[in-house]
Amino acid sequence: MKVMKGKQSLEFEHPPYLKGWSSVVGEKEGEGPLGQAFDQIIDDPLFGQETWELAEGRFMRQAALLAIQKAEITKNQVRYAFAGDLLEQIMATSFGIKDLEIPLFGLYGACSTAGESISLASMTVAAGYADYALALASSHIGSAEKQFRFPLEYGSQRPLSSTWTVTGAGGFVISKEKSPIKVRGITTGKIVDYGVKDSMNMGACMAPAAAEVIYQHFNDFAMTPDDYDAIYTGDLGEVGKEILIKLLKDNGYDISKVHGDCGIEVYQDETQDTHAGGSGCACSAVVLSSMITRKMISGGWNRVLFVPTGALLSKTSFNEGETVPGIAHGVLLEREEV
Amino acid sequence: MKVMKGKQSLEFEHPPYLKGWSSVVGEKEGEGPLGQAFDQIIDDPLFGQETWELAEGRFMRQAALLAIQKAEITKNQVRYAFAGDLLEQIMATSFGIKDLEIPLFGLYGACSTAGESISLASMTVAAGYADYALALASSHIGSAEKQFRFPLEYGSQRPLSSTWTVTGAGGFVISKEKSPIKVRGITTGKIVDYGVKDSMNMGACMAPAAAEVIYQHFNDFAMTPDDYDAIYTGDLGEVGKEILIKLLKDNGYDISKVHGDCGIEVYQDETQDTHAGGSGCACSAVVLSSMITRKMISGGWNRVLFVPTGALLSKTSFNEGETVPGIAHGVLLEREEV
Repeated sequence: MKVMKGKQSLEFEHPPYLKGWSSVVGEKEGEGPLGQAFDQIIDDPLFGQETWELAEGRFMRQAALLAIQKAEITKNQVRYAFAGDLLEQIMATSFGIKDLEIPLFGLYGACSTAGESISLASMTVAAGYADYALALASSHIGSAEKQFRFPLEYGSQRPLSSTWTVTGAGGFVISKEKSPIKVRGITTGKIVDYGVKDSMNMGACMAPAAAEVIYQHFNDFAMTPDDYDAIYTGDLGEVGKEILIKLLKDNGYDISKVHGDCGIEVYQDETQDTHAGGSGCACSAVVLSSMITRKMISGGWNRVLFVPTGALLSKTSFNEGETVPGIAHGVLLEREEV
Repeated sequence: MKVMKGKQSLEFEHPPYLKGWSSVVGEKEGEGPLGQAFDQIIDDPLFGQETWELAEGRFMRQAALLAIQKAEITKNQVRYAFAGDLLEQIMATSFGIKDLEIPLFGLYGACSTAGESISLASMTVAAGYADYALALASSHIGSAEKQFRFPLEYGSQRPLSSTWTVTGAGGFVISKEKSPIKVRGITTGKIVDYGVKDSMNMGACMAPAAAEVIYQHFNDFAMTPDDYDAIYTGDLGEVGKEILIKLLKDNGYDISKVHGDCGIEVYQDETQDTHAGGSGCACSAVVLSSMITRKMISGGWNRVLFVPTGALLSKTSFNEGETVPGIAHGVLLEREEV
């Protein structure tokens, strides 16, 4: 079997598995529709730290420790960590997990980070480079708003197209040991730029990147939307979801029956005032490690395409009037009887 | 043969090769001691762009195109790019190479990025995931000083322990096709924090991380400093070099005879007023793709350990009074008769 599949995909000859996974979230996420499904809800938004950035790092550290514990291994057995966050110089990652002393590949994929980290960890394990690799992603409403828009303390108004950054982190131990969820393959995205400049409408920025990687995934694996129980994008929200479905329909694929968006699942907009949905690296990570994994294990879902989506903007690129390019990374998950 | 070697290393069963490499630098680097060895010197620090960040992106794009050209392939043959830079949200990477349309894994490893990207590209090619993968790293004095310290326009004074960010980018096409330089293996670093807080003395911040990964490399491969023609750290500068050599001596290894530092090679301090040396992701990348590769091809060097070093600080972490942790990634290169 050839592992390179089509133009942008890999189908692993010896597929790795999700061996343990964790979701650690903040109070608002805990009050949302998935509240019961998360592993741990931390009511203190500062998680005992003095700054938002160190707080976010604590969420990531906790997600790492919990995923390791749930995989029933020790941290010394983890050969590599693949981790990233939204902050400048991925500060939450560097400061959050430095004391774990695991060889680290630092990543930046904006809100697509969970897809990027699970892809690389899976590639690493499938190649025999590690028995256990850890994939991590985090975000925090306090650190993200300060980094990209305005500090929360300013009380700025948010347009209806804006999303709410998820506070939390998700962790995944990838291993060759069989588990109910297999990583059959991946489809890695390119940067896609449709020229959208509105940092308050990131769904519109990311939808074309998601459409392109999903389209390529169908072609590479010779499958159609009917072959999936669910296709989950990261954080397109209500606005981006519509664009994604239209773009794919224009290109011959109707995903409307199987498409879900982690950003739409994570909050109840009417009661939680979150507008277009959730976002942030943690959004897709914690929805995968709670609701999606549950549905795969006991809800009858046998095949899921997980496609976290990232908006590649920075404070500087926004202030300099640049566009917001998008990127998305697909991970093909399948249920396996163990 | 087991590819996992010791605690933190891989030794590839089917080693990949550096198939094409490029160095694109600014005027000051071109006037330095390695001026003749660089592929291309761009006199316009803005590289025809309107901002430092987009200029840096152009350096990276140029390095990518040149490496692809020198590898005698086309950009469509490159299955993955592994790339990163120093800016918030790796803006130079996102904006610089978006039009190349290559599936991208965005990285953040501070100035260790060249080691991180070559490591991951090598792992990818050695596993059969790609025929050609591209590793990239860039930095720019204008964008870096604005990001981390003060805009150049302020004319701030610099202490003697500070380094000068290299303007430029290096690119490496990794492939299984034989070439004179083989990637025999890698040693991946952990975050190491000795509690140094001085962002103007990054050599001291990074030296412990370099010492730890070099020490582990010797142990994992059961080799000693005598087995290498050269061991090149990324950008420790004069201050960090002394600390590194002392730390390793205290742990039983004397690397003083074979150690070099890319940051020390790239400028002539007395005439160029660069103080402790060069730094930035581009520093180690362009020294590898110029001087080190030349010495391996025609200078009699048969085995080189390349160890780019990164200081994990951000403007925010500095302003919040945090320490500057370090990280370093080792790549073991060997000369091969072709």
